[in-house]
Amino acid sequence: MLPFLLLLLFAAPQGAGNSPAKAAAVDDGPSYTASGEMVRPENYREWVFLTSGVDMSYSDSAAAPARSVFDNVFVNPSAYRAFLKSGTWPDKTVLVLEVRGAEGAASINKRGHTQSPEVRGIEVHVKDSSKEGVWTFYGFGSTGAGKPFPRTASCYTCHQEHGIVDTTFVQFYPTLLPLAKDRGTIRPDLLKELEPVAAPAAGSPASSK
Amino acid sequence: MLPFLLLLLFAAPQGAGNSPAKAAAVDDGPSYTASGEMVRPENYREWVFLTSGVDMSYSDSAAAPARSVFDNVFVNPSAYRAFLKSGTWPDKTVLVLEVRGAEGAASINKRGHTQSPEVRGIEVHVKDSSKEGVWTFYGFGSTGAGKPFPRTASCYTCHQEHGIVDTTFVQFYPTLLPLAKDRGTIRPDLLKELEPVAAPAAGSPASSK
Repeated sequence: MLPFLLLLLFAAPQGAGNSPAKAAAVDDGPSYTASGEMVRPENYREWVFLTSGVDMSYSDSAAAPARSVFDNVFVNPSAYRAFLKSGTWPDKTVLVLEVRGAEGAASINKRGHTQSPEVRGIEVHVKDSSKEGVWTFYGFGSTGAGKPFPRTASCYTCHQEHGIVDTTFVQFYPTLLPLAKDRGTIRPDLLKELEPVAAPAAGSPASSK
Repeated sequence: MLPFLLLLLFAAPQGAGNSPAKAAAVDDGPSYTASGEMVRPENYREWVFLTSGVDMSYSDSAAAPARSVFDNVFVNPSAYRAFLKSGTWPDKTVLVLEVRGAEGAASINKRGHTQSPEVRGIEVHVKDSSKEGVWTFYGFGSTGAGKPFPRTASCYTCHQEHGIVDTTFVQFYPTLLPLAKDRGTIRPDLLKELEPVAAPAAGSPASSK
């Protein structure tokens, strides 16, 4: 979804992990190394899926990508359950953005895109009241812990300016958006983010220019 | 993913459900009505996500879609855990295909596609040894139980001819494909499905024609 500043960290294909989805719900909050890096959330593929986007960009001037990508977003189950009740995120929310290669024609598919085993990077957005600023972004390479993004990174200002629920892009999470509307948890000055965007020209935005 | 015959059942937007992901793992197999229809798997959005595709088609002659769609695939957690161990599907596997509307430019996104609250249809592929044929497809409308597809439907022959693991399209499930390779569970005569497909012309398949 590119809700986070996109790091094109070229990561090795990820295995699916061995822990069951059930276990992931027991203790799924963030943990950290002694130096303040975030321990890699290895089982995020067993968390709750929020959405996928393809070839997204927040820049008007961005050229078509040389290689297409999907952006898959997952959230830890305990935070998801809290959102279902309240329409917003509890402390210890962990949102994982996985950037994954997109295939064109593959096997019997002739059109559009499918997802490939190639993981190009993982970025994580964590709500933790014990940390300065509460919400922190972490970038992960192919292995190991994640480094916090500096507070001056553009992901923080972009999420502050456009994230409709508690600095997160719930406008792109199709099952959570109706809940946030029902609960009244959308920041009032950001309701404009839900207004239709005029197409730049004839045809779909994806095919024009 | 269009692994199933695409029914464009225009369904109402789906809520995210209220049951936690943890509960979904306890008893997540198929259940049926007295008349042999499948009871709707209401909590599939809390199951394990396998992949998303966008604007896929298995037909060479398919025109570009009038409206873009995403296809999200989920599996019940008990079947997922069994696949992690064995590289294939156990009895009582339930694979859910959700067809969801795709937005072009929306909020701050300028390019590509994001997912919308509009669910256009749900189709389910169930492995159940108590049923004739073992694997059955069910189509769901906006509410209620799912009707089995007749055995003459093309989804059965297509999955039989191209589904690399036990008639399922594991070639499009990026975290499961490496596991199936490791476990040697890919049908040998279908290894050809994994070979690169020549691009039809210059440019990406999505932008050509």
